[in-house]
Amino acid sequence: MFATVLLLLVALCAQGGNGEERGEEAQRPGHVTVVIVGGTGDLAKKYLWRGFFELYVNKVKGGNTFSFYGGGLSPADKGKPALFEILKTLSCSKDISQERCALLKEQFLRLTQYRELKTLENYQKLGKDIEQDLKQEGMTEAGRLFYLSVPAFVYADIADKINSSCRPTSGAWLRVVLEKPFGHDFRSAQVLASQLGGSLKDEEMYRIDHYLGKQVVAKILPFRIENKKFLDPIWNKHHIERVEIVLKETLDAKGRIAFYDQYGVIRDVLQNHLTEVMTLLSMKLPKNLSNSEEVLNNKLQIFRSLLPVGKKQAVVGQYQAYKTEVQQELNKTKDHVSITPTFAAVLAYIDDAQYEGIPILMISGKMLDERVGYARIVFKNDVFCVQNHNSVHCKPKQIVFYFGHGSLQYPAVLVSKNLFKPVLKDAEWKEVTEHKDVNVLGLSITDYYVHTPKKQREAYSELISHIFAGRKNSFISTENLLASWGLWTPLLSSLATSFPRIYPGGAENGDLLDICVKGREINYNSEVVIISNDQMGGTSAKGFQVMQGKFRGTDMVSAWSEELVNRLAEDLQEAAEAAVRENGVFHLALSGGSSPLALFYRLALHHFSFPWRETHVWMVDERCVPLSEAESNFNTLHDHLLQHVRIPYHNIHPMPVQLNQRLCVEEDRGALLYENEIRALVNGSSFHFVLLGVGYDSHTASLFPGSKWDEHGKKLVVMTESPNKPHQRMSLTFTAINGARRVAVLVMGKGKHELVTQLSRVKDNPDKWPVTGVKPASGTLVWYIDYDALLG
Amino acid sequence: MFATVLLLLVALCAQGGNGEERGEEAQRPGHVTVVIVGGTGDLAKKYLWRGFFELYVNKVKGGNTFSFYGGGLSPADKGKPALFEILKTLSCSKDISQERCALLKEQFLRLTQYRELKTLENYQKLGKDIEQDLKQEGMTEAGRLFYLSVPAFVYADIADKINSSCRPTSGAWLRVVLEKPFGHDFRSAQVLASQLGGSLKDEEMYRIDHYLGKQVVAKILPFRIENKKFLDPIWNKHHIERVEIVLKETLDAKGRIAFYDQYGVIRDVLQNHLTEVMTLLSMKLPKNLSNSEEVLNNKLQIFRSLLPVGKKQAVVGQYQAYKTEVQQELNKTKDHVSITPTFAAVLAYIDDAQYEGIPILMISGKMLDERVGYARIVFKNDVFCVQNHNSVHCKPKQIVFYFGHGSLQYPAVLVSKNLFKPVLKDAEWKEVTEHKDVNVLGLSITDYYVHTPKKQREAYSELISHIFAGRKNSFISTENLLASWGLWTPLLSSLATSFPRIYPGGAENGDLLDICVKGREINYNSEVVIISNDQMGGTSAKGFQVMQGKFRGTDMVSAWSEELVNRLAEDLQEAAEAAVRENGVFHLALSGGSSPLALFYRLALHHFSFPWRETHVWMVDERCVPLSEAESNFNTLHDHLLQHVRIPYHNIHPMPVQLNQRLCVEEDRGALLYENEIRALVNGSSFHFVLLGVGYDSHTASLFPGSKWDEHGKKLVVMTESPNKPHQRMSLTFTAINGARRVAVLVMGKGKHELVTQLSRVKDNPDKWPVTGVKPASGTLVWYIDYDALLG
Repeated sequence: MFATVLLLLVALCAQGGNGEERGEEAQRPGHVTVVIVGGTGDLAKKYLWRGFFELYVNKVKGGNTFSFYGGGLSPADKGKPALFEILKTLSCSKDISQERCALLKEQFLRLTQYRELKTLENYQKLGKDIEQDLKQEGMTEAGRLFYLSVPAFVYADIADKINSSCRPTSGAWLRVVLEKPFGHDFRSAQVLASQLGGSLKDEEMYRIDHYLGKQVVAKILPFRIENKKFLDPIWNKHHIERVEIVLKETLDAKGRIAFYDQYGVIRDVLQNHLTEVMTLLSMKLPKNLSNSEEVLNNKLQIFRSLLPVGKKQAVVGQYQAYKTEVQQELNKTKDHVSITPTFAAVLAYIDDAQYEGIPILMISGKMLDERVGYARIVFKNDVFCVQNHNSVHCKPKQIVFYFGHGSLQYPAVLVSKNLFKPVLKDAEWKEVTEHKDVNVLGLSITDYYVHTPKKQREAYSELISHIFAGRKNSFISTENLLASWGLWTPLLSSLATSFPRIYPGGAENGDLLDICVKGREINYNSEVVIISNDQMGGTSAKGFQVMQGKFRGTDMVSAWSEELVNRLAEDLQEAAEAAVRENGVFHLALSGGSSPLALFYRLALHHFSFPWRETHVWMVDERCVPLSEAESNFNTLHDHLLQHVRIPYHNIHPMPVQLNQRLCVEEDRGALLYENEIRALVNGSSFHFVLLGVGYDSHTASLFPGSKWDEHGKKLVVMTESPNKPHQRMSLTFTAINGARRVAVLVMGKGKHELVTQLSRVKDNPDKWPVTGVKPASGTLVWYIDYDALLG
Repeated sequence: MFATVLLLLVALCAQGGNGEERGEEAQRPGHVTVVIVGGTGDLAKKYLWRGFFELYVNKVKGGNTFSFYGGGLSPADKGKPALFEILKTLSCSKDISQERCALLKEQFLRLTQYRELKTLENYQKLGKDIEQDLKQEGMTEAGRLFYLSVPAFVYADIADKINSSCRPTSGAWLRVVLEKPFGHDFRSAQVLASQLGGSLKDEEMYRIDHYLGKQVVAKILPFRIENKKFLDPIWNKHHIERVEIVLKETLDAKGRIAFYDQYGVIRDVLQNHLTEVMTLLSMKLPKNLSNSEEVLNNKLQIFRSLLPVGKKQAVVGQYQAYKTEVQQELNKTKDHVSITPTFAAVLAYIDDAQYEGIPILMISGKMLDERVGYARIVFKNDVFCVQNHNSVHCKPKQIVFYFGHGSLQYPAVLVSKNLFKPVLKDAEWKEVTEHKDVNVLGLSITDYYVHTPKKQREAYSELISHIFAGRKNSFISTENLLASWGLWTPLLSSLATSFPRIYPGGAENGDLLDICVKGREINYNSEVVIISNDQMGGTSAKGFQVMQGKFRGTDMVSAWSEELVNRLAEDLQEAAEAAVRENGVFHLALSGGSSPLALFYRLALHHFSFPWRETHVWMVDERCVPLSEAESNFNTLHDHLLQHVRIPYHNIHPMPVQLNQRLCVEEDRGALLYENEIRALVNGSSFHFVLLGVGYDSHTASLFPGSKWDEHGKKLVVMTESPNKPHQRMSLTFTAINGARRVAVLVMGKGKHELVTQLSRVKDNPDKWPVTGVKPASGTLVWYIDYDALLG
């Protein structure tokens, strides 16, 4: 079968041909076998055969020969005609003459055959046949490409069969292409990856995200590199106002519910397509764009820098008719409710020096008013127009990567003219200067520099050519995939019981799905159920939720955790202001642990007038670990509070657990050193405010049950032993704590309920219940206990 | 004269009258004498008599009686008829019946007389007459009000005369009202204040800024207080995008050039009106609005928090015809050029936790396209509209204090409906709900909640009633005035030789005056002279300006200071990245002094990918002062660099000049401690990068001429003596410096030219020329010398 074709190929090559050469990596010469498993399925029919035919047309003049197999579960008598039905619809692009196209198509059909690929024997037979043909024709093998266009649950099995019976001859490559979904969450993706890893090497796997085949998406990194000199000064938090990555669809999920209802829009679109675009926009530019290791590492760096995305960073919706579609397609009763989201808006932040604080919105939904996809970088308005407000300079500044559809109807990179005239060093792109008047994201098309690909390519055709060229950058590596699931899985878990907002679909949605970013959180802009009249103004009348009472004979404030923390922050600021008024200085001792984190966050983001300049921050206790480690109480305090406020360096007093490059060695006398520092700076060694937590075992500071706490006498700082690692601790003593003007004990969470109940009953016994030893001599003690801890 | 009127007054009071009572401070009962010095001048004619008549109408039913004097330089036979001409045009507001108005006017005329007020004798006579009248009628005196509507240069003289001969009887108040200009700069304002201070107490002086009498301006603080619950969450850097305070005029300065040309728009409008508005918008809210001390202190706090405003924070313009007007009115030749600005835009920043980074634009000019004044707070866009982009939620969010004129034509407080529905607890204000369709600053009037005063009052009338009520908050105190001049004087000095951009005037200005904020600087948005094609993109092709050469036999980089610093920052980052790649850590030793400030600024604002997390920062030298003092090298480094980047706390290594609560005491062995820290953490004690400066005496680090530097042997850190205070220093030795992989010496400024010339000639002699001792053993040395220092 090969012989005739080879002759023909040579002849065509001599003629020159029309195939385009696009500066690709050198391709190993020899024969290439392509196997589409699922070769008569929907995707194959719609995109894959078209893509491989295009590959053939473009590469036929290169140094390779080809054979193609369409694999399916049906026996040959059924599969063959089905495959032929697909192949006969193939067509060439317009720049190829009809005669030549007919010739190419005839060749392609002759090179292509159907195969039943079901059992191991089928694969073994395929493997043998390929080898035999190669031997028979005396050809070197370049490689084998398996495109698995089948449900994900059979990936592992097929990969195993390929591994055991279809590996190419030595020196030739094996590339196995996989389609999403790649798992359902982090764990399932990991399981799938490790299953596949048993059969295939990482470099043999090509996970397709067809967004990476979209010409505009593929252009993001080259655009950023080519326009580096314009972008460098503005591609940062000082200039970018926000980033929007949006894919709006008008279609519903009808007919696909069996699949869709298990996944929903976050797994279907955000976890893959929008996340990839986000990393391309924000990753550090690689020195070498074709160095896939460098590109991957820079992408992974973004995942590491992303703040966690939780329930408060997402809103979800579901179109009204979805419920009925689920009931019908999944044969459910009228009572059945699915909470799978068909719309989601998610707010992400990259927590590094370049991008911190820039809101990144990722939004996608079905049954919206229009079909459009884009990534938009909106820049801060830095121009003040004194008179002529119609000048382009007074308008929004933005860069838009327009994937297609929408008002523009074609893919393009748009740069508003008030930014810069971009450079696109690519013969395949052209500038568009004549347009019909159309508005694109708030600006007239004439206010943009517009660049578009000279020839629009189908994403799949593009990616198929990249597989052939071995361009791994266009595909999702295992690490990248797991990093993305690492980002999305916690959100998906936390949304597992959330009810989406129901929207009617289409234009009727009105502004029902509009969203609002407040602080680091996202919400629907309009309330469907009115909770409070005050809501719109940004505050709500929450005061009534705070309760004041008594606990262990002293004052207690109780509320839901958020209000409790707000109240504690207010009390703390009040105490700080009073101390500064009186003494010009405020000495604050803070505890480690997780409870105070919410307080730190509140102080950093809301208490702008806190007198940090006059505040000295001391530690209540510390673990004997280097200050640089995440376990260090001080490290947490620094990362979450101190580095966000304007506190003088010399007002910060970490405990000296590390001296002479060693940890808590007795002869270094760290505790005494800290004690002397307190005695020297804090008037009467009496802190103005000490914040304590309490552990499940009732320990407070690092004063654990089972010690004789009255043995410390007048010492202010001691070394202690924790039952948990790291065992060694440094801690303020009860003498230091009880000398304070004000002590607050913060107790939060259902897990503390039992302890709170016990504490409400027991007598003072600091050796058994250390926290009961907190009894300020002349100061006041206030318990801050949230409703979860108080009421269970 | 008084007797008849008094009877009438009593009768009127019994009728109830129409005067409004507005909750003012209790007014001392008795007789009030009002003297307008300059009572037949322009201002008096236009505003003052109207204001005092209104005061009379409103207060006639209160517990006071009045007499009024119009004072002038002319003798009575000329002054009297002139005054009468003015008084006869007085009219009442519409809510007063014609009959009653006629009656009131007749009374007012009878209570008013002209006085020649020129010599001391004139004033003595006036004083005596007032006293005699009081005695004759048996009246208690409430107070005397002198309104000085005369040029500022006679203030001191008149104040002196008032002091010596017109002080009221004991227990009654004296209020002397002054009109701007209050000086020409900080020094002249100070001189004037101290001259006036010789005659008048601070509480007797009422400096008028008529902007504070505008109803909308006076409403700013009450609005902020009444809407505190809405504003608190958004009135900060996280929500405010920018603030614009704008006064646009269509008029020119014709006829006033003799005055105007000495002042210009900054002194005429920005230093007073716009600055006052700015402080009202940003000051901490007083607990008690009528506590003028608290209000003043909070205002002064804003002045202390303002970043300095320099040449780079301002642009100036001058309308084209101004030149000719100056030539004509000042009798100048055609060659005469005035550079007095008639347009200015200034960018200010309040450097505190609440507002840092919010650009505050103050803009004013003559001969612009429209007359309008407003202060606008633009909020960040936090809403994403998924579909319906016409919803009010998708539009800009802003609060506008609209002083008047412009498209709206009346004063109002406007809050865009997507923010909140404001509360105005003031019976004198009303909500406007019916409007003709008009666009106000980018939004349709229907998109705002609009509040306007029920009755528009003239600013002067308003202020006259405040003088009468003794409301000092509506006037400019000496401290406030000097603080404002303190802000503006450095800018005025630095602009003294700047040529303003010439603009044609009116609509023709087009976008010529549009401005652009970049980083902390402001520029005209369009270049009139094209300097570089690249300019628009944000960077300019500056590379060619950097020169590489040799200095003292080793590498030198030279450029204009800005490029030099940019280059040094780049080289530093490159070195950091290389070190981190190789060793996972970068050890950087930095010098104190002023030269590195520009470098710190550059690193903080532009080098987002600098590997701070892996960088350890060491000090090259330190002064023996507490770390908390401004003189401390570390303090400067911390304020200008470290607190702006994400560097771990434990990577920061200040020199231990303060140990055991004392400074540089030998037995505390601080130098040895630092040396040990270096030996423990820095591999081979070899810093990756050491940045040095050089003093006029050629000292580098704190190694001064006249010591035997080779005596230090292998020591890395030593105590040294500076010829300048503070004498004691801690410094790295040449051993430490020359062990580094890379050393950079930064030399900038014309003042260093002579030194650079000398250094280029002398041989190595570290004891005489310390910097010549910098010779890295195996590392490299690069001199960074700017053109000023190199070429003089």
